[in-house]
Amino acid sequence: MKARRKVYVTGVRPDIRVPFAEVELTGAEPSVRLYDTSGPGSDPAEGLPPLRGPWIAERGDVAPVRGPGTPLAGRDGQRPTQLQYARAGVTTSEMEFVALREGMPVSVVREEIAAGRAVLPVNVNHPESEPMIIGSRFLVKVNANIGTSAVTSSIAEEVEKLTWATRWGADTVMDLSTGKRIHETREAIVRNSAVPIGTVPIYQALEKVDGDPVKLSWEVFRDTVIEQAEQGVDYMTVHAGVRLGYVPLAVNRVTGIVSRGGSIMAAWCLAHHQENFLYTNFAELCDILARYDITFSLGDGLRPGSIADANDEAQFAELRTLGELTSVAWEHGVQVMIEGPGHVPMHKIKENVDLQQELCHQAPFYTLGPLTTDIAPAYDHITSAIGAAMIGMFGTAMLCYVTPKEHLGLPDRDDVKAGVIAYKIAAHAADLAKGHPGAQAWDDALSKARFEFRWEDQFNLSLDPETARAYHDATLPASPAKTAHFCSMCGPKFCSMKITQELKEYAAQGMREKSTEFMESGGKVYLPLA
Amino acid sequence: MKARRKVYVTGVRPDIRVPFAEVELTGAEPSVRLYDTSGPGSDPAEGLPPLRGPWIAERGDVAPVRGPGTPLAGRDGQRPTQLQYARAGVTTSEMEFVALREGMPVSVVREEIAAGRAVLPVNVNHPESEPMIIGSRFLVKVNANIGTSAVTSSIAEEVEKLTWATRWGADTVMDLSTGKRIHETREAIVRNSAVPIGTVPIYQALEKVDGDPVKLSWEVFRDTVIEQAEQGVDYMTVHAGVRLGYVPLAVNRVTGIVSRGGSIMAAWCLAHHQENFLYTNFAELCDILARYDITFSLGDGLRPGSIADANDEAQFAELRTLGELTSVAWEHGVQVMIEGPGHVPMHKIKENVDLQQELCHQAPFYTLGPLTTDIAPAYDHITSAIGAAMIGMFGTAMLCYVTPKEHLGLPDRDDVKAGVIAYKIAAHAADLAKGHPGAQAWDDALSKARFEFRWEDQFNLSLDPETARAYHDATLPASPAKTAHFCSMCGPKFCSMKITQELKEYAAQGMREKSTEFMESGGKVYLPLA
Repeated sequence: MKARRKVYVTGVRPDIRVPFAEVELTGAEPSVRLYDTSGPGSDPAEGLPPLRGPWIAERGDVAPVRGPGTPLAGRDGQRPTQLQYARAGVTTSEMEFVALREGMPVSVVREEIAAGRAVLPVNVNHPESEPMIIGSRFLVKVNANIGTSAVTSSIAEEVEKLTWATRWGADTVMDLSTGKRIHETREAIVRNSAVPIGTVPIYQALEKVDGDPVKLSWEVFRDTVIEQAEQGVDYMTVHAGVRLGYVPLAVNRVTGIVSRGGSIMAAWCLAHHQENFLYTNFAELCDILARYDITFSLGDGLRPGSIADANDEAQFAELRTLGELTSVAWEHGVQVMIEGPGHVPMHKIKENVDLQQELCHQAPFYTLGPLTTDIAPAYDHITSAIGAAMIGMFGTAMLCYVTPKEHLGLPDRDDVKAGVIAYKIAAHAADLAKGHPGAQAWDDALSKARFEFRWEDQFNLSLDPETARAYHDATLPASPAKTAHFCSMCGPKFCSMKITQELKEYAAQGMREKSTEFMESGGKVYLPLA
Repeated sequence: MKARRKVYVTGVRPDIRVPFAEVELTGAEPSVRLYDTSGPGSDPAEGLPPLRGPWIAERGDVAPVRGPGTPLAGRDGQRPTQLQYARAGVTTSEMEFVALREGMPVSVVREEIAAGRAVLPVNVNHPESEPMIIGSRFLVKVNANIGTSAVTSSIAEEVEKLTWATRWGADTVMDLSTGKRIHETREAIVRNSAVPIGTVPIYQALEKVDGDPVKLSWEVFRDTVIEQAEQGVDYMTVHAGVRLGYVPLAVNRVTGIVSRGGSIMAAWCLAHHQENFLYTNFAELCDILARYDITFSLGDGLRPGSIADANDEAQFAELRTLGELTSVAWEHGVQVMIEGPGHVPMHKIKENVDLQQELCHQAPFYTLGPLTTDIAPAYDHITSAIGAAMIGMFGTAMLCYVTPKEHLGLPDRDDVKAGVIAYKIAAHAADLAKGHPGAQAWDDALSKARFEFRWEDQFNLSLDPETARAYHDATLPASPAKTAHFCSMCGPKFCSMKITQELKEYAAQGMREKSTEFMESGGKVYLPLA
């Protein structure tokens, strides 16, 4: 039986080995190569090999922070960021890797990063990651959130969710752990992750002050960021745009503030009646992130949490501030993406992208959904896949998944898969709509296999081969059905594809002449049931 | 425990009783009324009561075709169609029912029907149906396909699928049975259906000629239509637009002809080298449909079956013909809707609606999906819910569902539910995007319940209360959790909604003054874990 296998394509140097999932097809059909996020695989206790180790070391701009064996950071105030290299016209091995992975010229990769229109999130302390790029010129990416909460889950479960999420196609993973053992959970996740890891440092900072937002301070937050930076977190959500003056704008909403980080910072601002310390210390924060090449994911703490609150004053006031902060980060050589909503009805989606692109100087947009209606808890992977596909088409670079458990509970393994698959669909639909070069080849290969009744090829080309095969077999389990020119949906007499194939052969020989012959042959265009 | 219950609102006469699902909420919240398709319920052996019997009889324009006790048809060449009544300025009881159901003025209902922009499918032989309307000014509707195939399913199963589909919100049901006992299956379905039933008569006609398309004839088809008309089928798909000259346009497609009816008619046209007999006999067909008030669903036999084939010459050539046929049907007083694709990438969706509205004189559009990518068999309810929501936003009046089994096998009960739910989401998202009056009230009620931690209200307002409740309980099963001000997703410390609620109370009392008090009270904005 033909199937998928992992192949590596070697780049300009032998240690640039870009993974693809190669689907071998039957007959003379050329095999199809698909983007692959599943990583090299590992024993969780050992972690992944440090693929990027030599590349980071060769550049000579980082050094261990506390002597041999300790984490790396920019040497002598240097900013070892992909943004700085791109601006200087230097093509890094990470950029070469990404160009090969995306099938795009490396010059485009470098230029998009230099202009801030794309980010390549790679902490110097996460050498295990396989470089990937987030920007509207490239394939639309998908993020999966995992992480423990105070009431459920364990470290082993979270590492398994990571592996599971990337197996189904997650391009990045955010560790949103909020319970006990946040540090250990994150360590296990980063060491086993071939995709960039994002976090929201304020969650851990809050745990350090016993869960009391009022006790938070810049110092606690800064130390938490450095702790996570040294572990290798590739991008961090920072809610620096929740300014004191914007909080009252959210108070009369139907659902107030629904971002956890946003509500924490709002609570702090009001309690102290002071400006958000993330905003007032933003330049210093940039200096820290620059030393590790951590990418900002500027959080939308005031995103709408319901259809009623979409595109309101609170949301767009914060977005303007995120635009200002983008410029500050860029001045410090730090890569930036901007987080977006949330809950937005379809007719208000485009405005979100247009405004974000304008106010944030074309920095990549990274949105949560958006959900296009509030009425379907337990199906918010679908309500939001609709919005995600559309916002992707309009230019959003990465889509943060929503699972069926959204609003109801912590996602388990099945929910993670359901969320990732729904979002891979949204992302690929957006790639097609944007006319991304090569995106349609996948659809065409699968449709051709379908039309030619190459069932195994159709399954193997599917986003989820196992489930496609299982659904087929549920009604026609016999192995011969895999070559049958029909399925149980219509049965043999009504299979339009089968009839068309016969028409096609028929038409190829000239229609009028063939008509007689066809009639004489009994005019059968189907095979009777055996 | 509060829950949903069925209520009836009485109209201008006591036998106009419009069903709604009323959701009672806790506390002082007003209850919410939702559109309800589930019907009055029945013993399948007895069938439903003939709600519309008196209305049909009173109009005096129909008579039994073969004496007392036989099916009804227009008396003496009369055309008892809602279109004819609407044109004559007559408001039927069906229109009154629909106006109350949609919350729209009855004058709008009548005018939209008169102009052909909406259809109200009600065969005079299906008095059991609760009237509903399909048109872009009204709520977007969802159709569910059921039916036996040659290799699987039974009559009892199909009646159960009907009940199940309408329980979850299907507005119409198509019986696409193709195996043995087509007549009996349909009889059981029509007698138990409170929603309009659609069919594709060519399927049964084909069974009558032993499955050989070449043996089909106008006479066999006509007799089949009359047989189904007398049973009470409310709308019929007719592939009269698959003209001989268009068939070659489809031959070099990636997936040829994927409509079953389309491929059957194409086979007939080519074998005989004659024009489609549905096209050449269309006027006579109109006369038949007019006598029963059956609505045309002009089939898109050349719809694209893959992304590669979307919006091509074959598809749009047929659409032009459907526009011509619409005018002919209207001349005969017959209601018409137009079927549409299929598989269409997002950026090509709008063109489908715009062209259909232009070429078909604003007749209601009724589309299958469309699927926005071909790569996800087993998830085509999602690939197509994306397209369905968008095409609904652009003006499509009814969305034909796609189940997870599409392309793989015949849907079972779970697939039917998954398909209906995905499409109710798409339809409601479209209603919101179109600004349909009242649509957002449902979202707002649910979001308010969510924000106020009224868990039971949130569940009861959900599209699928059972699943929402089950997902919540999977991680926090204890009954107290139903009043808990958090869920397992974030736990108590990180519940942004909880924090915001406290901020709201706080802000209400003046921010600066309150700041001191808040700090003095220990500045807690969460409840510690019990």
